[in-house]
Amino acid sequence: MPAPQRTGGRSMTRIPLHAEDRERARVTFRENPLFSALDDEQLERVLDRTRLARLDPEAQLFEQDQPATDIYLLESGRIKLSRISPEGQEKVIHLVAPGNTFAEAVLFSGMARYPVTATALNACRVYCIDLQTYAGILRESIDACFAVMARLSRRLHEHVAEIDRLTLHNATFRVIAYLLDQIPEDQGGPDTEIRLDIPKHVIAARVSITPETLSRTFSRLQKQGWLSVQDNLIVVHDVDRLRQYIREGA
Amino acid sequence: MPAPQRTGGRSMTRIPLHAEDRERARVTFRENPLFSALDDEQLERVLDRTRLARLDPEAQLFEQDQPATDIYLLESGRIKLSRISPEGQEKVIHLVAPGNTFAEAVLFSGMARYPVTATALNACRVYCIDLQTYAGILRESIDACFAVMARLSRRLHEHVAEIDRLTLHNATFRVIAYLLDQIPEDQGGPDTEIRLDIPKHVIAARVSITPETLSRTFSRLQKQGWLSVQDNLIVVHDVDRLRQYIREGA
Repeated sequence: MPAPQRTGGRSMTRIPLHAEDRERARVTFRENPLFSALDDEQLERVLDRTRLARLDPEAQLFEQDQPATDIYLLESGRIKLSRISPEGQEKVIHLVAPGNTFAEAVLFSGMARYPVTATALNACRVYCIDLQTYAGILRESIDACFAVMARLSRRLHEHVAEIDRLTLHNATFRVIAYLLDQIPEDQGGPDTEIRLDIPKHVIAARVSITPETLSRTFSRLQKQGWLSVQDNLIVVHDVDRLRQYIREGA
Repeated sequence: MPAPQRTGGRSMTRIPLHAEDRERARVTFRENPLFSALDDEQLERVLDRTRLARLDPEAQLFEQDQPATDIYLLESGRIKLSRISPEGQEKVIHLVAPGNTFAEAVLFSGMARYPVTATALNACRVYCIDLQTYAGILRESIDACFAVMARLSRRLHEHVAEIDRLTLHNATFRVIAYLLDQIPEDQGGPDTEIRLDIPKHVIAARVSITPETLSRTFSRLQKQGWLSVQDNLIVVHDVDRLRQYIREGA
């Protein structure tokens, strides 16, 4: 039986992976760019040295300045990473979502101690991955490093695309909400005209987007046939469709 | 004088970096996770073998299946990466934004040929980084690999946080727009009550978010004192503030 570890005044047990947990871990690890690039034998070596921690809400997984022994992969729940400032104030650095790793800084930068405190916000299941085992696999093979870099950079590209999509989607929503705000509630036939009485860069600032994104949004809406833009005259072809867009949030 | 390269029927010149371009490249490279981790000497070696390409709109930087010689960092403009399907249809894989690298797949996976075609959407300035030089630096040092992995994983964490922020912000905007939609235009005193007549998971689906995000959004709005939620009764404390939020898009 493993001895419970004392962290932050609460006991927490890290247990080796039993067959079922290990199978579940294997699936989760294969989704993560730090592990998806390992070959089968390397992944099994990592799993041999991985333990499962179950945390109650408020429990600490590790504390700032504690010697670093593991990197972590959150399976379920939500983890808060925070630092205590010299003035004693807590600063939240990051909230970890399921499927993501944390504390890789100690791995890649060779830090001896954790730079943050990790606290469970709710009930969490966390895989604790032995730092030396994983680092050893990478250090023994440039190919493993290249594979991990490939996955990381591919994931980065996906995120850049996702942020772009979200930003544009967000912008479209706001621009439409702004335009509808210029149309009285009782109006809204086909081809309703809106004369913009303020410059476009001011409108952009009002809806918290860049002028460039405003232009992209207008041209996309124009291409979709939702409206026509001519200098400061906007013709909304179907006001109800815009109102429905806002109502449905899509 | 370097000979112009023929790509896609248009001529394109790749020129070595002159003093001013090199200075500018150094600043741009230091911002990028693939290069920010290199030491000064390594970065200068990379810059020695980096050339600058200026592309006209529609010009191709490289074509699918062409031998891979470089990875690229876009300084300005926008680049489209696309593939031609076996049926001859073009599929856009990614639009590259300034500051980002592309074609690292050929670097990390050791591909001999580009898997995509890169076309300028508008006037572009692109740094062409000799593949062998950069790969050589990484291959000669596990520490350089670890430094690059550290930067990549830190950037990934930043992106995850940004996506989380955008998603939540977006969700807040939509949830408020939905709530306002339930309040007739001529109503809106303090503590206006809204009785939700459909289950929360249906509302979540209506505004295109997950039920979990809807809960998080409600609790955040409640914490901010904007409304109170009790089962299916929402009390909006200040309708005008919500209307202003939507108007200002912030």
